[in-house]
Amino acid sequence: MNTSQPTILVFHPNQSKEYAACIHDYGFTSVKTASTPEEAENQLPGTEVILGWNFPTQLLHKPAASSVRWFQSIGAGVDDLMADPSIPENLPITRIVNQFGTYISEYVFTFLLYLLKDVPRIRQSQIDRSWDPFTSESLTGKTIGIAGIGSIGAEIVRKARAFDMDVHGLSFSGKQAHLVDRHFTADEWEDFVKELDYLVLTLPLTRATHHIVNRDILSAMKSNASLVNVGRGELIAEEDLQAVMRSGHLQAAVLDVFEKEPLPEDHPFYSMPNVYITPHLSGPSTTEGVSHFFVENVKRFLEGQPLHGLVDRKRGY
Amino acid sequence: MNTSQPTILVFHPNQSKEYAACIHDYGFTSVKTASTPEEAENQLPGTEVILGWNFPTQLLHKPAASSVRWFQSIGAGVDDLMADPSIPENLPITRIVNQFGTYISEYVFTFLLYLLKDVPRIRQSQIDRSWDPFTSESLTGKTIGIAGIGSIGAEIVRKARAFDMDVHGLSFSGKQAHLVDRHFTADEWEDFVKELDYLVLTLPLTRATHHIVNRDILSAMKSNASLVNVGRGELIAEEDLQAVMRSGHLQAAVLDVFEKEPLPEDHPFYSMPNVYITPHLSGPSTTEGVSHFFVENVKRFLEGQPLHGLVDRKRGY
Repeated sequence: MNTSQPTILVFHPNQSKEYAACIHDYGFTSVKTASTPEEAENQLPGTEVILGWNFPTQLLHKPAASSVRWFQSIGAGVDDLMADPSIPENLPITRIVNQFGTYISEYVFTFLLYLLKDVPRIRQSQIDRSWDPFTSESLTGKTIGIAGIGSIGAEIVRKARAFDMDVHGLSFSGKQAHLVDRHFTADEWEDFVKELDYLVLTLPLTRATHHIVNRDILSAMKSNASLVNVGRGELIAEEDLQAVMRSGHLQAAVLDVFEKEPLPEDHPFYSMPNVYITPHLSGPSTTEGVSHFFVENVKRFLEGQPLHGLVDRKRGY
Repeated sequence: MNTSQPTILVFHPNQSKEYAACIHDYGFTSVKTASTPEEAENQLPGTEVILGWNFPTQLLHKPAASSVRWFQSIGAGVDDLMADPSIPENLPITRIVNQFGTYISEYVFTFLLYLLKDVPRIRQSQIDRSWDPFTSESLTGKTIGIAGIGSIGAEIVRKARAFDMDVHGLSFSGKQAHLVDRHFTADEWEDFVKELDYLVLTLPLTRATHHIVNRDILSAMKSNASLVNVGRGELIAEEDLQAVMRSGHLQAAVLDVFEKEPLPEDHPFYSMPNVYITPHLSGPSTTEGVSHFFVENVKRFLEGQPLHGLVDRKRGY
């Protein structure tokens, strides 16, 4: 380990000690922790790097934060930070990338297969002690469209290939367009969705993607298509989706993220038979995974190399 | 189409007309159908090729069957025919191969993911309108063991690769041993199963595989491992499995095939919480798929090429 170690502050409401222990195990000895805004303010002087979740960002403008040179967010989405005027414009912010693809792609195929093979019918037959063979379809030849082809989208593409699906994609940058059979740009949403059997949202939430999936887009989808949202709740105009699901236009909506989380107990989604709700669990941040990613980034930071997951403030992710 | 067409008899208790129409669409005009033993006996004279499901095999020794030169079974398993003394020893029998891998591998991953991601807990939370996030595991790095590496097993291997699993295999022939990370032979069952997270049975039923998965093998498995049977019910000593599942030794048994089918209404499996029953639906024979396979084989038959799926009578599959 390089002797010139940066002073690290880990902020997490209830897991700061676990992250610190993990980072310490990698040989970093100058690691402080805080779980409340007060603790954070006390620990800030001398801190060069923050690893934070729900960090009290208003502290970043105080003199105590003048030594902070980089902020690593715990999580793939930084829409909350981008919308936060407290973040100094020149402070580099990084987000976690390449950590969630495995889990989120497994989540997507769990539900695609659960619905396709009609597992609820199978389970009910067992309860009824009835022998009810039926033929279900195959994913082979079905078309999946992935909106957002970052590290998560790319992993969904890879698994879709193993299921011999046709893979379409829409992205703003077009950087990974080569991964998909057909690529669409941000002004081709209707063309993109109209041939899909499955639309999967993995987009970051930015001003450009807020409520991008509205009534027009949902109506342009095939009536037997299904929607999966593992990005952010605000990508979808939820009231429009409610109306569409009530009309029976789509076969299923599988939602891991919502405009308001936790989803309020009285939300209509809970009782809609074609809506499948999961409590924002598709891409869990494991302490080990995040710490490993962070430590690799610290090494790059010390060596002056470009950081992984560096957020483009203008683009918003 | 060659003008020397063979005379084909399609026998199926309730779908013979559908198969015949499909085969006719490929340009074969000499296609007869039968749905009962009486009809079959009347149609046999002059028949050269039989495409059959539950065919009344006792007819094959009658003089009316003297023109029959080849029997194509509808289905991947021919254990019933092999056990049937009515089948003339020199009659070539073929089974369907390369048709079921897609469906059966989808079935396997449907249940692996359903269990791993605890979909029942997720669905119950929605019913309870409760926001209950939890962390589940990933298939990455888990070990799947496939007993029987034919065309079905090979397709399971391919999908397991996309989920970054460690893939072990056991086979009698060893012909496709190169597909798996570790290959075991038929006398290494205990070594094979003891490190697995998932044991998937795709073996044919023969004298050598009957009740091959018995109490000793089940007990050698890890207590948190799961078993999936998409081969034949008789591969497992069902009474042993009942005892093991009652003891809580395995996490789950997913069974698509049983010693007696339909599974009797009073069978204890129905009410065992860690046993997942499906009514022999994992590998559906579609009329189109079977007809396509058969027609390709008829062309080979006419050209004197080796038939696909030719059964080795000694080996039993």
